[in-house]
Amino acid sequence: MLNLVPFVSVDAMMKLVMARGVETVLRELAAEIERDFRRWPAFDKTPRVASHSAVGVIELMPTSDGETYGFKYVNGHPANARRGMQTVTAFGVLADVSTGYPVLLSEMTILTALRTAATSALAAKWLSHGARTMAIIGNGSQAEFQAIAFRAICGTEEVRLYDIDPAATEKCRRNLSGSGLTVTACTSAEAAIEGAQIITTVTADKSNATILTDNMVGAGTHLNAVGGDCPGKTELHHDILMRSSIFTEFTPQTRIEGEIQQLPGDHPVTELWEVITGAAPGRRSAPEVTLFDSVGFAIEDFAALRWLHRRITEDGGAVMLDMVADPDDARDLYGMLMRSGSLPTTAADPD
Amino acid sequence: MLNLVPFVSVDAMMKLVMARGVETVLRELAAEIERDFRRWPAFDKTPRVASHSAVGVIELMPTSDGETYGFKYVNGHPANARRGMQTVTAFGVLADVSTGYPVLLSEMTILTALRTAATSALAAKWLSHGARTMAIIGNGSQAEFQAIAFRAICGTEEVRLYDIDPAATEKCRRNLSGSGLTVTACTSAEAAIEGAQIITTVTADKSNATILTDNMVGAGTHLNAVGGDCPGKTELHHDILMRSSIFTEFTPQTRIEGEIQQLPGDHPVTELWEVITGAAPGRRSAPEVTLFDSVGFAIEDFAALRWLHRRITEDGGAVMLDMVADPDDARDLYGMLMRSGSLPTTAADPD
Repeated sequence: MLNLVPFVSVDAMMKLVMARGVETVLRELAAEIERDFRRWPAFDKTPRVASHSAVGVIELMPTSDGETYGFKYVNGHPANARRGMQTVTAFGVLADVSTGYPVLLSEMTILTALRTAATSALAAKWLSHGARTMAIIGNGSQAEFQAIAFRAICGTEEVRLYDIDPAATEKCRRNLSGSGLTVTACTSAEAAIEGAQIITTVTADKSNATILTDNMVGAGTHLNAVGGDCPGKTELHHDILMRSSIFTEFTPQTRIEGEIQQLPGDHPVTELWEVITGAAPGRRSAPEVTLFDSVGFAIEDFAALRWLHRRITEDGGAVMLDMVADPDDARDLYGMLMRSGSLPTTAADPD
Repeated sequence: MLNLVPFVSVDAMMKLVMARGVETVLRELAAEIERDFRRWPAFDKTPRVASHSAVGVIELMPTSDGETYGFKYVNGHPANARRGMQTVTAFGVLADVSTGYPVLLSEMTILTALRTAATSALAAKWLSHGARTMAIIGNGSQAEFQAIAFRAICGTEEVRLYDIDPAATEKCRRNLSGSGLTVTACTSAEAAIEGAQIITTVTADKSNATILTDNMVGAGTHLNAVGGDCPGKTELHHDILMRSSIFTEFTPQTRIEGEIQQLPGDHPVTELWEVITGAAPGRRSAPEVTLFDSVGFAIEDFAALRWLHRRITEDGGAVMLDMVADPDDARDLYGMLMRSGSLPTTAADPD
């Protein structure tokens, strides 16, 4: 007997997203993430389990709401880009808590790019003071997803791009032509942030870089810091943090991985779900500088996988994988194995 | 561009195991596990990451030797058997530490059954005083694998079976006929252990059961305790532990999950790799009672997956999965997505 697990390939994911429309998908993902953030206390939460090496990190990100369990495998290898490979790749699984059986396996490189952008835009929807113009510093794989998500969810009209590599900016500009956004390619971070209510930093170098210095950040700015997401990898100058109101996903993980790894462990921060549920205030005034110190949390992937599971259930697109052994008699795994062979054990065994 | 990941299905795993012969596979797995135990300090080690619910547990078991990363997803749901489902199902992944890309996805329900039995027999090879006769208390999915592994690796000639459910014992007896083992079905645990140098306990109930009491365990016995493997789930009476020399896989995990959860956190134990490398003594005398308090550790799965990876590289049997997005330009994930659609973003987006 077979217990088949639906699998969504990279190709199937692209078809699904394109058929539904990228902006629609981003809005649906943001809504799904917001719904799950509203029931935050219902989830098992743990900082992701990271395996670090000199060149990158491999992480497992599990969570559960007591009915459904999900986890994502994700790597972060900045040097991959120089070899023509993705910095971040991912896949994920949903499982039924009552049986432990997986019910979905999916590529998540594309889905992570979408959910990261949807989460950024969701945070800005709750925290920013105006969203007409956004600067995007770092124009790699995530940049266009950010731009489209902010257009779809926050009504952003203009994006101003900067990357230390002009080719990355040009790729991003080209991809965003026809998106409905006004796109301005800039030759410095200073130029990019001109007139921007929102500054997104999404660089990939695994080092304590200073993408923004304090004097660059004007009153009222919302900072969307996406790129700093592991120990030793930050993007903002310490002084910016000191004058920002800081918002996190899951604080115990952000203390390890986020911009706030530069601050003492008791520096006050607010979790985004608290703002969404009204348990804590978000932005308190127009001139306040708000910072969403985003590192990516398991509940966002859970929400994205549940959205995907509904989509393939309604629209198809998955193929079925023979991934879970399920003998007719549950206790007879060995018998199932033996019956699969044409010869008895001893004869099939050459020695 | 596609970056395909080899996938070994349940069916492919069964074909591979049957073609090679179960005993050969068990011996190869035990050798592979022994090799990795010999280089124990080279591995990243962490207790598995467990998500508990009222009816079971879902666990992630990662490890890395600095070149290769592996993890297993595994559940434990004792009530599944009553619904005709497996108590334990699993799948696993190997990845390249230098890139973070997965290089193998495999079913591991069958592979876990094999590696668990291979590890038990490997421990007994190093610890037991004689292995001619083994009692197996608990005759579920794992029982036959234990019997065949002990025959293949320790030269066991007779197995004596007992289960509270006579149908399980009968299934096990039937499956082992023709294996070369003398099989005796018993109607009590007391009868099963008669004359046995090795007692394997491999029951599945998630409770502090007492499968063996102190007076049942004679001098010189090797206890192979496989069934107790999560908090609140043990099989042996406390007094047995007090007069046994206790051997573990990875002690920090065993303190949480193993029989020794009944003992103080500083009760002396020896890790099996220490015995194998000669860093610590194993059995010290013939009358000593030795206990392998097995809960299953990530390095065993890592070894099994590496064995499998070699097998499919040499013999085939895997199918290729489109699981990792890999655009021609590594930074152009969005462009890859857009080009996959037949229409530009805005037109494809209905709203």
